[in-house]
Amino acid sequence: MPEFLTLLPPDQAREKLLAHLSAPTIAPENVMVDLALGRVTAEDIFAPHPLPEFPRTTVDGYAVRARDTFGATDSLPAYLHLIGEVPMGDSASFEIGAAQCALIHTGGMLPKGADAVVMLENTQTVGVDEIEIFKSVADGENVINIGEDVAKDQVVIPKGTILRPAEIGGLMALGFISLRVANKPKVGLISTGDEVIEPSQRPRPGQVRDINSYTLGALVEKSGGVAVRYGIFGDQFEVLKEAAAKSLTECDVVIITAGSSASTRDMTAEVIRQLGEPGVLVHGINTRPGKPTILGVCNGKAVIGLPGNPVSALVNGYLFVAPVIETLLGALPKPKATVQAKLTVNLPSQAGREDWWAVKLIVNRQYPSGTMSSIVAYEAEPIFGKSNLIFTLAAADGLLKIHPDATGLSAGEIVDVLLI
Amino acid sequence: MPEFLTLLPPDQAREKLLAHLSAPTIAPENVMVDLALGRVTAEDIFAPHPLPEFPRTTVDGYAVRARDTFGATDSLPAYLHLIGEVPMGDSASFEIGAAQCALIHTGGMLPKGADAVVMLENTQTVGVDEIEIFKSVADGENVINIGEDVAKDQVVIPKGTILRPAEIGGLMALGFISLRVANKPKVGLISTGDEVIEPSQRPRPGQVRDINSYTLGALVEKSGGVAVRYGIFGDQFEVLKEAAAKSLTECDVVIITAGSSASTRDMTAEVIRQLGEPGVLVHGINTRPGKPTILGVCNGKAVIGLPGNPVSALVNGYLFVAPVIETLLGALPKPKATVQAKLTVNLPSQAGREDWWAVKLIVNRQYPSGTMSSIVAYEAEPIFGKSNLIFTLAAADGLLKIHPDATGLSAGEIVDVLLI
Repeated sequence: MPEFLTLLPPDQAREKLLAHLSAPTIAPENVMVDLALGRVTAEDIFAPHPLPEFPRTTVDGYAVRARDTFGATDSLPAYLHLIGEVPMGDSASFEIGAAQCALIHTGGMLPKGADAVVMLENTQTVGVDEIEIFKSVADGENVINIGEDVAKDQVVIPKGTILRPAEIGGLMALGFISLRVANKPKVGLISTGDEVIEPSQRPRPGQVRDINSYTLGALVEKSGGVAVRYGIFGDQFEVLKEAAAKSLTECDVVIITAGSSASTRDMTAEVIRQLGEPGVLVHGINTRPGKPTILGVCNGKAVIGLPGNPVSALVNGYLFVAPVIETLLGALPKPKATVQAKLTVNLPSQAGREDWWAVKLIVNRQYPSGTMSSIVAYEAEPIFGKSNLIFTLAAADGLLKIHPDATGLSAGEIVDVLLI
Repeated sequence: MPEFLTLLPPDQAREKLLAHLSAPTIAPENVMVDLALGRVTAEDIFAPHPLPEFPRTTVDGYAVRARDTFGATDSLPAYLHLIGEVPMGDSASFEIGAAQCALIHTGGMLPKGADAVVMLENTQTVGVDEIEIFKSVADGENVINIGEDVAKDQVVIPKGTILRPAEIGGLMALGFISLRVANKPKVGLISTGDEVIEPSQRPRPGQVRDINSYTLGALVEKSGGVAVRYGIFGDQFEVLKEAAAKSLTECDVVIITAGSSASTRDMTAEVIRQLGEPGVLVHGINTRPGKPTILGVCNGKAVIGLPGNPVSALVNGYLFVAPVIETLLGALPKPKATVQAKLTVNLPSQAGREDWWAVKLIVNRQYPSGTMSSIVAYEAEPIFGKSNLIFTLAAADGLLKIHPDATGLSAGEIVDVLLI
């Protein structure tokens, strides 16, 4: 197996692949903002006007000239003349003059002349139109000024932002109804192996259903791409090459999950070599699972050969396919969702190799539970099993990495578990 | 403001609400497995057959009777007679007898008579049909036995599982093409406030665009629900009550985001009181932002009044709306995505109150970076700003909770940041 002479660490392997894909070449598209959750902005978004566009109060109370309240205390209140009530959703028809005030509700527009708001609880009505003020306010107190949220022409959402509920709301606040987002990269999925059949079929002895087209398809979808399944191909070179060439023409990325035998793996590498320049970049990665992974680029598009073993294919999908999709989307790097947990057992690892273990997270009963508690701690329980059992991953909450420098992890260590 | 006399801690408030919703009442639906990513299983899934269905080799090598290899070493190899090659995707036509072996490829079906596989690298071919074995194997070595992944009739995916790529693959492996999942709860969204207008409109002085229907709509979608927007209603009791009643009939959950003034908030509480039994359960929560949040149940359905302030509405959406949707879906509790980070500054907090701060996560340059590194550490930088600025949330990577028992957090403390 000559390919395994040049095992690269996963981080270096990924960098080498992504370096060939640096420029997103996929044309952006317009989408409605209210349907844009999870999409990636294709350009910087500038504020067309400041936010807020008028000075607003943040409390219920009285709009005043701050200087008219200076020195006011419980024992020595200031007295202001009430000249009206600010209507919600409109500007006041009056102006606040010396020793005057107006009733105002949270979110209301500050009337002309006023520069601060005294909270209702620090006031008392005296007669019909006189207000006692028990606490002084500074200029601007309890007021959001024009542009305090965002200034006109400010970049409010940079290019490459993955849109979340907060951004959707921010866009709406500025009146954006549609926006330009990166098109979803199309990822062609090819399964190979004489033993592999469609999931809808009943396997005969020796046959297994195709898992990889579907786990990887779901991962592609989750990562912001579109999965295009090309089906299952037997172990014949020309047939596989033809399918890969078609997929390379029609898609932005091609994934070939090799049949699990060595001969099929070698065939995948040869197909990638013949498909376009520069061809195979990395053949063999110093990780478990995933050693036989092949990373290639053909005519500017990533072509990835993943092991046929479904656990290995999916774990390496997280390691290599998801980052390729993020790169094509032009997505800015984001912290990965992790959970800190206490490892329950010793985990051995071969020095120099990066290991990924499927782990189950179990609520640590010493900590208070609760859906949103930020201090809930978990225990991480590795799931042992041969690496090609798909249900070891189905039972796992996440993946635990053992760094190549380590020769293992000890029971009781606090580890970061990457949620999957 | 009498409602604030009975402020409940958020965890207790949420428990009280969810206790009224314990039984998922939404009918399940059938979906195709390859479109089921993110859906929640409505019943336990049992394995219709074991997996694998036949003993398979995990390596390339020779299928043998383990006892024929006992004692084999480099200096004293065992010699076995090669009787054929196991075809991929089929059973072998031969049986392995004493001192016999057959070539087999990873994933191939173990032939009758064989009980282990010797790896190719521990063998050498001698002449045409004789194989030298340099290493003994134990019974079952390099073999996955029938049912070793899952046994027949085992629960492979419990009811309430949120389907991820691994589960999709597991279902396919067992031949499931469709499955029953929880229907998406319909969440009615009502915005109120005389000052609020549709995002497509140009605000006049004093007016602001509706943000909450869209941030909360996106949150609903992200949480597995369907958002139904009922639009914006002015501050008239009967109009609001009618809209809420219609939404309660048509949806599984109703969210009213109150106009920001105290009078509108009080109106929301009264609407919930009149809408159905038991009505308002919690009025006022000991948290910031979110004190004026109202939690109610009317005729078995959650009706939630959120503050009009967009930051408060969205943060309390994460705290209360998302858990309601998860409960209606019957989703099993899952660890929340968090990132550990070092707080950059001191954060004060009022004892007894739970505070949520929007924070930005900044890569800590002392740690190696890398997309998938599990030991990347971040610094958490709180975003200061008045609580009603939507772009403070758009700039945030997550939310940091200050526990009610704490009077603040110190710079340098390691904190869990809940990703949003």
